[in-house]
Amino acid sequence: MTKAFSFSISGRQGAARTGVLSTPRGEIRTPAFMPVGTAGTVKALYMDQVRAAGADIILGNTYHLMLRPTAERVARLGGLHAFSGWDGPILTDSGGFQVWSLAQLRKMDPDGVTFQSHIDGSQHRLTPARSIEIQADLLGADISMQLDECTDFPCSHEEALRSLELSLEWGARSKAAFGQRESQALFGIIQGSNYPDLRERSAKGVSEQGFDGIALGGLAVGEGHAQMCETIDFTVPHLPPEKPRYVMGVGKPIDLVEAVARGIDMFDCVLPTRSGRHGQAWTWDGPVNVKNAKFNEEIRPLDAESDCPASRDYSLAYLNHLFRAGEYLGPMLLSWHNTAFFQVLMARMRAAIADGTFDDLRAELSVRWADTRSAPRQA
Amino acid sequence: MTKAFSFSISGRQGAARTGVLSTPRGEIRTPAFMPVGTAGTVKALYMDQVRAAGADIILGNTYHLMLRPTAERVARLGGLHAFSGWDGPILTDSGGFQVWSLAQLRKMDPDGVTFQSHIDGSQHRLTPARSIEIQADLLGADISMQLDECTDFPCSHEEALRSLELSLEWGARSKAAFGQRESQALFGIIQGSNYPDLRERSAKGVSEQGFDGIALGGLAVGEGHAQMCETIDFTVPHLPPEKPRYVMGVGKPIDLVEAVARGIDMFDCVLPTRSGRHGQAWTWDGPVNVKNAKFNEEIRPLDAESDCPASRDYSLAYLNHLFRAGEYLGPMLLSWHNTAFFQVLMARMRAAIADGTFDDLRAELSVRWADTRSAPRQA
Repeated sequence: MTKAFSFSISGRQGAARTGVLSTPRGEIRTPAFMPVGTAGTVKALYMDQVRAAGADIILGNTYHLMLRPTAERVARLGGLHAFSGWDGPILTDSGGFQVWSLAQLRKMDPDGVTFQSHIDGSQHRLTPARSIEIQADLLGADISMQLDECTDFPCSHEEALRSLELSLEWGARSKAAFGQRESQALFGIIQGSNYPDLRERSAKGVSEQGFDGIALGGLAVGEGHAQMCETIDFTVPHLPPEKPRYVMGVGKPIDLVEAVARGIDMFDCVLPTRSGRHGQAWTWDGPVNVKNAKFNEEIRPLDAESDCPASRDYSLAYLNHLFRAGEYLGPMLLSWHNTAFFQVLMARMRAAIADGTFDDLRAELSVRWADTRSAPRQA
Repeated sequence: MTKAFSFSISGRQGAARTGVLSTPRGEIRTPAFMPVGTAGTVKALYMDQVRAAGADIILGNTYHLMLRPTAERVARLGGLHAFSGWDGPILTDSGGFQVWSLAQLRKMDPDGVTFQSHIDGSQHRLTPARSIEIQADLLGADISMQLDECTDFPCSHEEALRSLELSLEWGARSKAAFGQRESQALFGIIQGSNYPDLRERSAKGVSEQGFDGIALGGLAVGEGHAQMCETIDFTVPHLPPEKPRYVMGVGKPIDLVEAVARGIDMFDCVLPTRSGRHGQAWTWDGPVNVKNAKFNEEIRPLDAESDCPASRDYSLAYLNHLFRAGEYLGPMLLSWHNTAFFQVLMARMRAAIADGTFDDLRAELSVRWADTRSAPRQA
């Protein structure tokens, strides 16, 4: 932990834990779900809605911001906090995942990756040092991530091994580039696909490098719910218990519950806003497609008991109409509802771990959300 | 005026006047600009933003709502106020203008108009009585408009005469269908294109019919700023001074100033939200295209002195980025800014009329916005 950061665990039930990650820009209650602000905005939300929903920290994307408006421009405008209007903690990813998932014509070499922008085809390069420069120096992230390489799923053992060794090397270079910082933190990333021996090797290697927190990468890439849980199961025992643990890109509500049960502290995912833009609301009863004709005269809101106006004050009939008419307010309201719902879920899990009722909550939600577990992607 | 409505003029300067139109759902300070909530939502805004921006009344569109979700469905859901979440006064148009501008294969007859939906080609019919049923009975509008026929611009004298006579007849039928109502009002509509004799004939005819307010239709249809002003000039002298006067579909800020100077009390226009969706902000210095590259590192907001967060709290550089990145928040912020700007303009005009400085304000804005006067549309 750098000087101004501390992680304290205040409650445990089984492997699950709750606590606070303190940062110079505020406290992050864990387990925490970080809304994704890809390009300096959490899509279709105002930042005060994100804050009021209960989010302590948001995520920004190095890949998107380095292409547009460019990291240098964000820096000249005062950094990502000033640019976006979010004054709480920000975690940025390294760009590695989006280079793998979005960029065109990427070419890896031992020192980094050269790729073409998916926006305009322009050529760019990321190295461990450049990623840190963008995240920590130019964007001003409170928590930066090491540059890593993602592998396809499924992935051969040989390829997964080669890749995790490269990510370990890049972790060391990222850490060297980051140096000692008073008020910023750096997390390492474990890879190793779904191979227990490789996850162990990666977990031990990353743990030894002395990062401020440790992320599990290479999940939510099509492996499905069961495999994701299994991978967390055989990776967590190799992690230092005192460091915050972050599963990147996860996930659905059922994934969050099962990962928290396995000792994970932090999450991010585009799901709340992406689902929201497409008419899908996440609720205690599972996902609801508000475009469904059965809602067109349904006077009930999504959740009459919610503190979130989007969940409480608009009828399903109105939401149905807004989506059918292609109105902005539909995606605005559902992105807001989903963002709030994910935060309330995290708050319920934190409270349940603290008061020893997490097993009951997990059992209840496992039944409620049984049908929402992702199957492995078909090859 | 029906029983629960009253219009009182509290100040005048030249032909300009300021006052209050009292309705059972609240007071409308005049001159008033009504944000357009076409399909039960003011596009990309929350209703509390519309209210906080200073709007006392919004407009709903009979044409859009009768097609989707249908007026009967809105009625079953409690009416347009409950459906949309706007509890202040609502004025609805009659549908006539959109049948003319949007619908396909429209066929006029002396009793009404049959047309095909621009959404799905389905066939529909509007008559004076059906329009009143939709507006007053099903949507529950506080102020309904008579069904009228719009003419193309330019339009021959013969055609404009035929059309205004039809609109007068439909006005009588609308009024008969509306009957006597305690808590709802009905406005008539003047047509007559840009012919002084026809506008006079229409104005006198509509005035004699005893509506609660009188609208000038057939403007903002391509005639340009000068012709619009001229038409208002030769129409207003034939209107009863004690009734509210409403110019439909107008307009740009300079149009509002010049129409207020000529004695108009009410306006509606999609411009604030439509411009907002396309990156155009209206300001005291005229329209600003925030997508312009010259703003990409401009740290200034649109208006540091504004009470509206959208105008005050976001840099032009950030707005520029949001539009270039295609983010929802760009249209959300600019629609909000423009909606607030139009309301502040109306508030300034009301205050200036009240304290006798309207001429000064008009002179200042005429210079500032000299370049924004629309030229007539080329044939």
